[in-house]
Amino acid sequence: MTTTGRRVGRPRATARAESGLTAREELLAAAGQLFTTRGYTATTTRAIAERAGMRQASMYHYFGGKEDVLAALLEGTVRPSLDLALALAARDDLPAEARLWALCRADVALLCGGPHNLGALYLLPEVRAERFADFRAVRDELKAAYAGLLAATAAGAELPEDELALRADLVFGLIEGVILIRREAPDRDPADFASATADAALRVAGCAEHVLPKLRREGEALHAG
Amino acid sequence: MTTTGRRVGRPRATARAESGLTAREELLAAAGQLFTTRGYTATTTRAIAERAGMRQASMYHYFGGKEDVLAALLEGTVRPSLDLALALAARDDLPAEARLWALCRADVALLCGGPHNLGALYLLPEVRAERFADFRAVRDELKAAYAGLLAATAAGAELPEDELALRADLVFGLIEGVILIRREAPDRDPADFASATADAALRVAGCAEHVLPKLRREGEALHAG
Repeated sequence: MTTTGRRVGRPRATARAESGLTAREELLAAAGQLFTTRGYTATTTRAIAERAGMRQASMYHYFGGKEDVLAALLEGTVRPSLDLALALAARDDLPAEARLWALCRADVALLCGGPHNLGALYLLPEVRAERFADFRAVRDELKAAYAGLLAATAAGAELPEDELALRADLVFGLIEGVILIRREAPDRDPADFASATADAALRVAGCAEHVLPKLRREGEALHAG
Repeated sequence: MTTTGRRVGRPRATARAESGLTAREELLAAAGQLFTTRGYTATTTRAIAERAGMRQASMYHYFGGKEDVLAALLEGTVRPSLDLALALAARDDLPAEARLWALCRADVALLCGGPHNLGALYLLPEVRAERFADFRAVRDELKAAYAGLLAATAAGAELPEDELALRADLVFGLIEGVILIRREAPDRDPADFASATADAALRVAGCAEHVLPKLRREGEALHAG
């Protein structure tokens, strides 16, 4: 084994010049591509490392194995939305409807962003395993944050508890449902799609059609701010 | 090899006494269970045959291979809804809103029915292959039928063409999105959930809240009739 060049079994702390990604990010990008095109089961840690331009042994400096890579990819699809949801939950000086709109829009943009449809990995049977409890917990927290914002809307405040839980499931299902439709209209503008999905979520939440334009403006301001 | 008993390499035309299923149905049930719990890649035709109580060779009387079994499972998740959608499209004596409601409700009941979440298989990378073109064509026809009913609603008729296509995607995404939420509230009544999702779909379609109870009654009558 050579001890010079980028194929040594040591972590690289700096970004590769050609992609601007760190070694860890390159491994995640490689795994995201392989898991969503070849399949999780069919992908080896060796194939991930090779696609990222490093040896299999080097990969183990960053991840404990294939499950760790999958866990990191999955958490990346929910953690940023949870962080936003918690920040929005604290802003009770703002209308709940506009905060819900802003969360929906950002969540759709995250789920539809990036080159690979990582949300498709949610439905892998492997994700039920104990190793992915953290991902499931973050996703549950995110869903609870949606329910909390929904409960604070004018329409949500009037719903009985079981109906509110059902409505929160449907809003969350609509947002995650973009996983199933994201690649069917590739020339659609992603930002427009995210805004339209956020509008639809507020319709499901029970907001009247005539208040949507105002909520959208408020939500967009929140997004920009 | 014995030439008597149920393990011979010949098709069984009659149902097995214990389950009431035909051999083909037993193979589909076995494959549905294995594909959604162990994963498609990890499941062999031998494992499917064994779980269905027959030899691997017997399985090939019913299916050409694992891909054929997957294709049959996938088509079973869209064909009944397409048949209903085409029947509903022809009933232009009835309000489009009520027909859309009835389609949504039946589609959710189909996607949430049965012991296994077969819709989870939609996101397998393998489903992009030529072998599954029939499934994708049926799903596209179903989506077009949704768009047709949506265009015939009072709210849909007022939308410009691109907005209508987007709205149809969102309604279809909400319905298929039940794949992502079906198992999280197992004690929820499936019929109530299907009706609530159909209500939500009409909200996304732009129906005003105050007309929903009437549409729901009309849709339910259509469902029963």
